Amino acid sequence: MISDFVFDFRFTGAIGPEVLGGKAFGLAKMMQMGINVPAGFTASTEACKLYYDQNRDLPETFWQEVDDHLDKLEAQTHKKLGSETDPLLVSVRSGAPVSMPGMMDTVLNVGLNDLTVEALASSSSNRPFAFDSYRRLLQMYGEVVLKINSGQFEYELNKLMVDPNLSNPAEIPIEALEELVNTYKLIITEESGGQFVQNPREQIRNCITAVFDSWNGKRARIYRRNERISDDIGTAVSIVAMVFGNLDEESGTGVCFTRNPSTGEKGLFGEFLQSAQGEDVVSGTRTPDSVLAMAQVLPAAYTHLVEHAEKLERYNSDMQDIEFTVQHGQLFILQTRDGKRTARAAVKIAVDFANAGLISIEEAIMRVDPADLSQLLLPQLPSDHKFNVAAHGLAASPGAAAGFLTLDADFAEERAKSGDPIILVRPETSPDDIHGFFVADGILTAKGGLTSHAAVVARGMGKPCVVGCKSLDIDLDRREVSLDGVIVSEGALITIDGTSGSVILGKPELSEPSTDIELDLLLKWADSRRRLRVMANADTPEDAANARKFGAEGIGLCRTEHMFFGEDRLPKIQSMILAADKESRTEILAELQPFQSEDFFKIFQEIDQDQVIIRLLDPPLHEFMPNRADVADSEVIRRIDELLEVNPMLGMRGCRLGLAYPEIYEMQVSAIADAAINIHELTDQWPQVKIMLPMVGFSTEMERLRCSTEETLQKHGILGIQIGMMVELPRTCLAVDQFINSADFFSFGTNDLTQTTLGFSRDDAEHRFLDSYLDTGILETNPFETLDKPGVGQLIGIATRSLSRTSRNVEVGACGEHAGDPASIDYFNELGLSYVSCSPFRIPVARLAAAQAAIKT
Amino acid sequence: MISDFVFDFRFTGAIGPEVLGGKAFGLAKMMQMGINVPAGFTASTEACKLYYDQNRDLPETFWQEVDDHLDKLEAQTHKKLGSETDPLLVSVRSGAPVSMPGMMDTVLNVGLNDLTVEALASSSSNRPFAFDSYRRLLQMYGEVVLKINSGQFEYELNKLMVDPNLSNPAEIPIEALEELVNTYKLIITEESGGQFVQNPREQIRNCITAVFDSWNGKRARIYRRNERISDDIGTAVSIVAMVFGNLDEESGTGVCFTRNPSTGEKGLFGEFLQSAQGEDVVSGTRTPDSVLAMAQVLPAAYTHLVEHAEKLERYNSDMQDIEFTVQHGQLFILQTRDGKRTARAAVKIAVDFANAGLISIEEAIMRVDPADLSQLLLPQLPSDHKFNVAAHGLAASPGAAAGFLTLDADFAEERAKSGDPIILVRPETSPDDIHGFFVADGILTAKGGLTSHAAVVARGMGKPCVVGCKSLDIDLDRREVSLDGVIVSEGALITIDGTSGSVILGKPELSEPSTDIELDLLLKWADSRRRLRVMANADTPEDAANARKFGAEGIGLCRTEHMFFGEDRLPKIQSMILAADKESRTEILAELQPFQSEDFFKIFQEIDQDQVIIRLLDPPLHEFMPNRADVADSEVIRRIDELLEVNPMLGMRGCRLGLAYPEIYEMQVSAIADAAINIHELTDQWPQVKIMLPMVGFSTEMERLRCSTEETLQKHGILGIQIGMMVELPRTCLAVDQFINSADFFSFGTNDLTQTTLGFSRDDAEHRFLDSYLDTGILETNPFETLDKPGVGQLIGIATRSLSRTSRNVEVGACGEHAGDPASIDYFNELGLSYVSCSPFRIPVARLAAAQAAIKT
Repeated sequence: MISDFVFDFRFTGAIGPEVLGGKAFGLAKMMQMGINVPAGFTASTEACKLYYDQNRDLPETFWQEVDDHLDKLEAQTHKKLGSETDPLLVSVRSGAPVSMPGMMDTVLNVGLNDLTVEALASSSSNRPFAFDSYRRLLQMYGEVVLKINSGQFEYELNKLMVDPNLSNPAEIPIEALEELVNTYKLIITEESGGQFVQNPREQIRNCITAVFDSWNGKRARIYRRNERISDDIGTAVSIVAMVFGNLDEESGTGVCFTRNPSTGEKGLFGEFLQSAQGEDVVSGTRTPDSVLAMAQVLPAAYTHLVEHAEKLERYNSDMQDIEFTVQHGQLFILQTRDGKRTARAAVKIAVDFANAGLISIEEAIMRVDPADLSQLLLPQLPSDHKFNVAAHGLAASPGAAAGFLTLDADFAEERAKSGDPIILVRPETSPDDIHGFFVADGILTAKGGLTSHAAVVARGMGKPCVVGCKSLDIDLDRREVSLDGVIVSEGALITIDGTSGSVILGKPELSEPSTDIELDLLLKWADSRRRLRVMANADTPEDAANARKFGAEGIGLCRTEHMFFGEDRLPKIQSMILAADKESRTEILAELQPFQSEDFFKIFQEIDQDQVIIRLLDPPLHEFMPNRADVADSEVIRRIDELLEVNPMLGMRGCRLGLAYPEIYEMQVSAIADAAINIHELTDQWPQVKIMLPMVGFSTEMERLRCSTEETLQKHGILGIQIGMMVELPRTCLAVDQFINSADFFSFGTNDLTQTTLGFSRDDAEHRFLDSYLDTGILETNPFETLDKPGVGQLIGIATRSLSRTSRNVEVGACGEHAGDPASIDYFNELGLSYVSCSPFRIPVARLAAAQAAIKT
Repeated sequence: MISDFVFDFRFTGAIGPEVLGGKAFGLAKMMQMGINVPAGFTASTEACKLYYDQNRDLPETFWQEVDDHLDKLEAQTHKKLGSETDPLLVSVRSGAPVSMPGMMDTVLNVGLNDLTVEALASSSSNRPFAFDSYRRLLQMYGEVVLKINSGQFEYELNKLMVDPNLSNPAEIPIEALEELVNTYKLIITEESGGQFVQNPREQIRNCITAVFDSWNGKRARIYRRNERISDDIGTAVSIVAMVFGNLDEESGTGVCFTRNPSTGEKGLFGEFLQSAQGEDVVSGTRTPDSVLAMAQVLPAAYTHLVEHAEKLERYNSDMQDIEFTVQHGQLFILQTRDGKRTARAAVKIAVDFANAGLISIEEAIMRVDPADLSQLLLPQLPSDHKFNVAAHGLAASPGAAAGFLTLDADFAEERAKSGDPIILVRPETSPDDIHGFFVADGILTAKGGLTSHAAVVARGMGKPCVVGCKSLDIDLDRREVSLDGVIVSEGALITIDGTSGSVILGKPELSEPSTDIELDLLLKWADSRRRLRVMANADTPEDAANARKFGAEGIGLCRTEHMFFGEDRLPKIQSMILAADKESRTEILAELQPFQSEDFFKIFQEIDQDQVIIRLLDPPLHEFMPNRADVADSEVIRRIDELLEVNPMLGMRGCRLGLAYPEIYEMQVSAIADAAINIHELTDQWPQVKIMLPMVGFSTEMERLRCSTEETLQKHGILGIQIGMMVELPRTCLAVDQFINSADFFSFGTNDLTQTTLGFSRDDAEHRFLDSYLDTGILETNPFETLDKPGVGQLIGIATRSLSRTSRNVEVGACGEHAGDPASIDYFNELGLSYVSCSPFRIPVARLAAAQAAIKT
């Protein structure tokens, strides 16, 4: 025979899970390690492919192999199929190369028939156990092999189980149980037109075929399509000697983790049920004990379990999730796999394993998903909370917050005076609401996208925020809201989760941010391995403090516009915009300058000698004006209308604004100079400040603005401040070499670059078609979260390579939203960028992701 | 001496204008051809550079060269400087390598002094002429060499010229004239602190230095900066023997073209003044005769002029603009250059020269500026009209139109019934005004940019249009408008010029489109030389007819949205948009289908067997809804608000719309299929139709739309229609290879591509900052008119190269506004595109530009 289709667990050699199936591969591996697992063999995925290639048929040579292995299994277990004294029973289980839990079929207790059931009854001295096992076989065989609807079997069983004293079919009086077995056999005869097959080898043969059939069952096909698993890999089938946890009082079954999957603490953690089979643990008919209880009832098996757990953990270099059964005092491990864990446990386990020398520091760094870290740093809604989610919106700023519902900023401010936590709920927000943001613990809006005012300001402040909550209706007259039809009055307690976008009535217990020393250690290791510098986007002294706390190496993007939204500044900005001429504009700007200067001073103080990159004003001026509908003054309305643009994203903003109103940038640069001078007077050191110009597209723009910026700095006697630019337009990427003499550094603004490269206005796309593109698979990932490599990524690549070819060695970074996304950070690292700058709460994510990127290359 | 700084016109050999200066180069060339020009020599641009290198000083060796050449000039002219019988007089003229008309200084009659003026008086027997010449020298020398303000000289002259009988200073009574000369000499003494220099050689020396100084005068420097002429090239100075057209009745002066510069007809065309100097022609104090009059008064000189004109034209292979003077019957040519001409003349002259074998056909093609051709094809406002321009707006659609001012579409329709020409004047237009467009001869709006509804629709219809006319205020209550403050009532006659953007009260005579046979011939020659195919953007059967008339090889872009704006369709489109569900939407679409089908049928009929590329619906749906302010129905308002986007340019449009509402494209594709079938039934031929999808960014979009388009076509039994896509997003350019299997052809939409690549919303940019960018030189050209090569051009290059590397040989074209711009066509040709598609009226421009591009490479 040219190829073997069937493999004994003891002799699989180097054959991998793609042939053996994952389950058999694991059992074979354990067996080869000396772990006690049930004997068995597997019919490989090749057999499955053959089955389908031959139009759902298998050659006699295959069945010959199966028979040979059944002979060997009989020899190994000292039992015989069909034996009337000590019959061999087996399970026939599916097992694909990748896990597809519950998607295919399995049949247990195969080998039982009218004769062997009696043998099992007497050998186990447990007649109800034997007949219950036979009953289970009949039902599973009926369903899986004969495709009989399970309802009929369950109907008959339920008729008996109505007795409230019964917690388990095995407790059914034996006469009734034997009667039930007969009823099941009748159902099979009626439904399939034939008797239940008594020959064990014929049973096994039919089960194998049925499992192969289940590979193409509807459930399995849908699952594979969703999980993007190929239809071609096929499943293997394991035939394993049955062990019974429900044989007697010295038997039992359980599942356990080798470490606590919530905290990562070392020690067994899991469940155990004496005298029970695995499905009893899963079905919840009996409440299991802690696995630790096993030490009392089955001490020898427990000691064995502890030893095996240690061995499996060492062998797999990771925390394990183990299924086991004790049969008459003997421990069998049925399955082991790397255990799922919380982010906190993942960190502790990775660090503990590395500290114990079980894995390298690089491996520990690679073990933790960077995206999970943000969970650890913000209050979270526990995943098991029992509250109803009343509505869903867009997750605009992560973290959960609970507080009293307030419908306007004034009331929020009033209410906050008493120290109450506040959730500010608005149709949408404008700069007029800014005093509400300051006192709120969270913000919820009915309208707006992920770049709406509410979203941007909340993220800047690090406050949880949900926007675009469509089922939220606000009735300001009645001072109440409707959440998907449920009326909630102002002052009620609600919770928002800016990580998931959900809105909850009431207040669940929130999990507090982690301060584990293991996290610190892991991030220190990450810092020592990464090449990319990680800086923070920070607009205020508070942001700057957060940035330092989370380990940022300076501020890579300080947006000056957010400073204008303060209650004391906004009216001035508005009158500046309304000013009739340059003189009056300059006058009002002079009043604003001390505010900006003080902001910069405080940020410089906070950030000490780290770098601070300040970006001059970027957004269109109309964003500072109140909502048109809220204005009575016709002059203000006229001016708002004048400023409004058809496509403001592509309009009068960024350096275009700076060139049209040079006095604005002049004020900002003067404020930077003043702040630097004040710092120098106080500390005798100059802050490491740089100035960055937004939305630059043409070298002439940059040359003129560089010139005027330097002039202003010189007026204040300041020299040598680096002047750089954002690269956020496709043109700028393509022609970046034109800027090499006028810009000292470059920073990719990937948000804007994504909008222009893809022609997606983020505000519009999200609600209008992006969701549907993601749902229908036109897009696989949201390009505003993970960098679109073929488009945006390629532009960044073109620009980076072009800059590296110039003789000038300039710094190149990225400061868009993608700078905090692990996949994008990986790409930035690959391109050789110098730094990424992301929001303070993403800093640990970025530190870890940057280390992983460096390790991978 | 290593280098010669001074060159006799007779012996300049191969020295070029960069050394001799343009003027001296021209005179030397003519002299060498045997044309009679005044004797002289030139101090080269090298001398000028030396002068500035030596800190405004020249070495004695240079002056020695000048003296030597003056000696030779005396010998050549048989006159002597300072002679008391027959004095040599010269002009000292500036002459840079490139023309800088009027920007530097010139002194005439140099060599006159208190003695030689008497000699001139007696040798010419014309004492007033001699003293007037001396007066002129004194004033010019005073101004140019001694920097005396001209006001003093003019004041004294004007005191004498108040006598209404005097038309010319030479007519001043001789005593007063001599007295004036003395007054001038006094002014010089007072202002310069020295006597007027009597030594002719010293006069010449001072004049040469003064001319070199004028190279760095303020006027010259500003002119060079504006014209981008280097400051380093310097000027030459020509010293030329004076000839006098005002010597006697056998003298005279004139300027003439060798062909009519308006029509291109062969024959002298220009002006002549008997007994006058050149400046008399220019100053307009006397009205010149036609140059033809010279045949009577100076027949010998005239014959000579005709001969010289022919010789100069042949030598220079182009129509010439000649300045000449006759001195005592002898003709001197003072200057010749290629003459400026109208577009019509340019065509005729180029074709005539080629037909006469004087230039090649390629040279004839290169001679005509393609941009000028559009002038020839539309009614134009003559450049010399005497009407006041009442206001300026944006030139949205070329050509001029006159008609009666009407303030709404209904009234326009009413008024048009009487056959009156109509100008529709609106604050801005919407689809509701479409019946007004049909009857109007021109459209004028107060608001909107070059892509506003009015602009797009008017261009599509080929009607003149001016938009964004800021000084236009419309008072619909009083049925009148204010144009920059002037009140004009409805019904008044006005004229708009969509080529320049001007608005005129009243109606000048408009020049009608040209139908010259020379233009046809030139374009036929162009067709035989070009490689790029030229197709038309045409949305209606009328457009298609125009396209064929102007020589388009098919329709490269048929925009289906314009078909929806018809009076009979718009209400249906609106109810389709308002439809509550897919069923009712599909129902209304079924009603629209016959309209679309008929449109396509008529276009297919019109275009016969040429290609027609139909683009499916592109604009956002909200564009079809009426202006929000004009709507009362709250449901319609709600729907408009729902459709409105923050940045519609980057929103739900193009294929995104087609994917969201598949029934729309299905209707359009069905209509195409029906029309094709009807054509086939009628003519037994299939139209050469292709279908194009707009705004494609992802291969999945294209794959799905291709699939559904093919399905729809198959339902109608149609196979083999090519399905292509617009390339109008940066991502699409960068990842164009991803589309190679789903698109059969590609067309760059350069308007949209420019918007996204540069981050310029055209609507916003034009009013807000683009104008100022162009004014202040941040941008040199409007990127919406001429392709931005470093950005947009590079993207197109990347995409084109990427497509040419694939194994599939696909057609690639361009159909944005740039497809009608010569500079951009040149680039498209260089990149190897297959075709360009532009508006019908630009077709001749594109045909010629494509030929020039092919000839250049």
